[in-house]
Amino acid sequence: MPDKIFPAGPIARRADGIPPFHVMELLSRAHELAAQGRDIIHMEVGEPDFPVAAPVLAAAQAFLGAGRVEYTPAAGLPALREGIAAHYAARFGVTVDPARILVTAGASGALLLALAGLTEFGDRWLLPDPGYPCNRQFVQAFGGEVDSLNVRAEEAFQPTAASVAGAWQARTRGLMVASPANPTGTLIARETLAGILAEVRARNGACVVDEIYQGLTYGRAPETALSLGDDMFVINSFSKYFGLTGWRLGWLVAPAPYVRALEKLAQHYTICASTVAQHAALAAFSPEALAIFEARREAFSQRRTCLLAGLRELGFGVPAEPEGAFYVYADVSRHAPDSAAFAHRLLEETGVAATPGVDFGAREPQRWLRFAYTTDVARIEEALARMKKLL
Amino acid sequence: MPDKIFPAGPIARRADGIPPFHVMELLSRAHELAAQGRDIIHMEVGEPDFPVAAPVLAAAQAFLGAGRVEYTPAAGLPALREGIAAHYAARFGVTVDPARILVTAGASGALLLALAGLTEFGDRWLLPDPGYPCNRQFVQAFGGEVDSLNVRAEEAFQPTAASVAGAWQARTRGLMVASPANPTGTLIARETLAGILAEVRARNGACVVDEIYQGLTYGRAPETALSLGDDMFVINSFSKYFGLTGWRLGWLVAPAPYVRALEKLAQHYTICASTVAQHAALAAFSPEALAIFEARREAFSQRRTCLLAGLRELGFGVPAEPEGAFYVYADVSRHAPDSAAFAHRLLEETGVAATPGVDFGAREPQRWLRFAYTTDVARIEEALARMKKLL
Repeated sequence: MPDKIFPAGPIARRADGIPPFHVMELLSRAHELAAQGRDIIHMEVGEPDFPVAAPVLAAAQAFLGAGRVEYTPAAGLPALREGIAAHYAARFGVTVDPARILVTAGASGALLLALAGLTEFGDRWLLPDPGYPCNRQFVQAFGGEVDSLNVRAEEAFQPTAASVAGAWQARTRGLMVASPANPTGTLIARETLAGILAEVRARNGACVVDEIYQGLTYGRAPETALSLGDDMFVINSFSKYFGLTGWRLGWLVAPAPYVRALEKLAQHYTICASTVAQHAALAAFSPEALAIFEARREAFSQRRTCLLAGLRELGFGVPAEPEGAFYVYADVSRHAPDSAAFAHRLLEETGVAATPGVDFGAREPQRWLRFAYTTDVARIEEALARMKKLL
Repeated sequence: MPDKIFPAGPIARRADGIPPFHVMELLSRAHELAAQGRDIIHMEVGEPDFPVAAPVLAAAQAFLGAGRVEYTPAAGLPALREGIAAHYAARFGVTVDPARILVTAGASGALLLALAGLTEFGDRWLLPDPGYPCNRQFVQAFGGEVDSLNVRAEEAFQPTAASVAGAWQARTRGLMVASPANPTGTLIARETLAGILAEVRARNGACVVDEIYQGLTYGRAPETALSLGDDMFVINSFSKYFGLTGWRLGWLVAPAPYVRALEKLAQHYTICASTVAQHAALAAFSPEALAIFEARREAFSQRRTCLLAGLRELGFGVPAEPEGAFYVYADVSRHAPDSAAFAHRLLEETGVAATPGVDFGAREPQRWLRFAYTTDVARIEEALARMKKLL
């Protein structure tokens, strides 16, 4: 293999060992098919399909109009940190000191910062399987080791106090948990998270809570783990509910004693998050913008209802009710023994693209396909009709 | 110390051990003085003072006008990677395959990616002292250890083949070198770098070349290490020559065999760099934009001449000619035994802010002050006049 000859010494293990995203292969085939004139329905994309909300766009344009785009403090514009804190107060009734909020380049930047600040070489982290595939890489970036937590559909694909306690080892540093979760769209019950926190606290461990899809819940009010205490590391994003993907903006809420050190890491690792994005995001909490985001949530809700019912009717299993994010994690075992092969067949024969479970974990991945409802109801109905014909 | 009680377990050593930037303390005092009505001349800032170039601003506004700001591929917009490659061809006569160019969130993102891809726990890196303070943190982020290379003013504060060969140890992974350099503004001679590369290659090591200030040279044509081979990791930025600081955009040119793995790291660590910034930067290589940047380089050149002559006249030592970036690294030992205390005295008594050497290294830092000419000639003259009165 010629690409294994490294003229400047070996590539680091953390980089060499990363498996490719299988969906990428699928995507390039989708592009080929589209180039041949085939109509592809994209249900593999974890990106909302709405344009930038008008008030946010206007704020960005007004800021650019002044012609100055300078560095901000590493932790972010004070006004944006205060805006995020005010949002926690207004929507969740939770008081968060703005000083605990670090604005980052997407939730990616927040995950990087949290794991850098918490992981010593050889530390172990508990990660639910299935889960967001990048989490494993953030742990390994800093010399950490991943122990997969087997989660069960009957428990909403979420960890429990018992599973965390059972999996904890001497070198376990902490746990990562997500609600709403990717790829399953499931939420963690407040009492379940409280029970997990008790186990983590008893072990002087760290709990990193991914709330990247916060606000995108259907039939249940959005929640934050911050209502359970101030000793968690909470990850958030402007990409999903606020729809600001390509702007690369997110934030980390850290326990107070860690903030100064994390801020120094941010100074060195990133200087600051995009100043343009920060000024745009200042408008994301305005009543006008929030009304737009709520209307979009309602649109997602209708898509979810349509997709969920349609998939179940076609014989896909959806054992854990997806109540958030914009994903349905469907069991395809009634139709096919291997979801990756089935995803290719779906694409070739119906033009529907979905993401195979192998991209999200190692526990029975061949049973699962993730469908994203980041496309409108008409397209979802079309996708369901095409799949019905196939099956 | 109450902030040493960590409710969620200890902070990682890489975060706990970071010394604060001394200039920050100075800056907060400068803000206090300004609030009291004092006129502060900022010569501590590593950020160009020009507004966004009109063609770049127009490109950003046109892009925003379409209302869609979506993720790009992790390695960046293909058109931007091609634009960067074309810039290397046009300005430096060097052919670089666009596939080797990874667009990142500032040079910070490029440094993070390169060190993540090259550093195993316990690997050692040679870093010139003085140097860019964040480099040390990027090495330590990934479990690496830093060995400071003592560089000498008589050798332009740059490493040599002999110093690199002499400092290399069994676990040395590579060398970081910058041209133009921060804080000294010095360049590395082409033949010196070639000699260093020969030593690094003989040891199967990696050479990370920081060209963040590329294009900002005075009296000497800009160069790139890429003309010496394709086995280096070259770091660049849109922040300095192109003046796009707060946009957070830079790039990494990697040797071909490393690109795929680094791209996977980028997918996981960042998803992509700011889409708005990437579309803005597409206009940075247009003839109109380059004409603006060249005019600004000329302005920097005049400031440099003014500041350099003025400082020398005041008895500051500038033993190594600063031929690039926008810094003069001045020896203050004729006037004061400790540059950090002197920086405070300068600020209090003259309102001139400069950065003490202690922020850039451990080798005789008390002798040095870094003056940035990121303010116009009139203000530089005013600063010199005030310092003359003091001394």
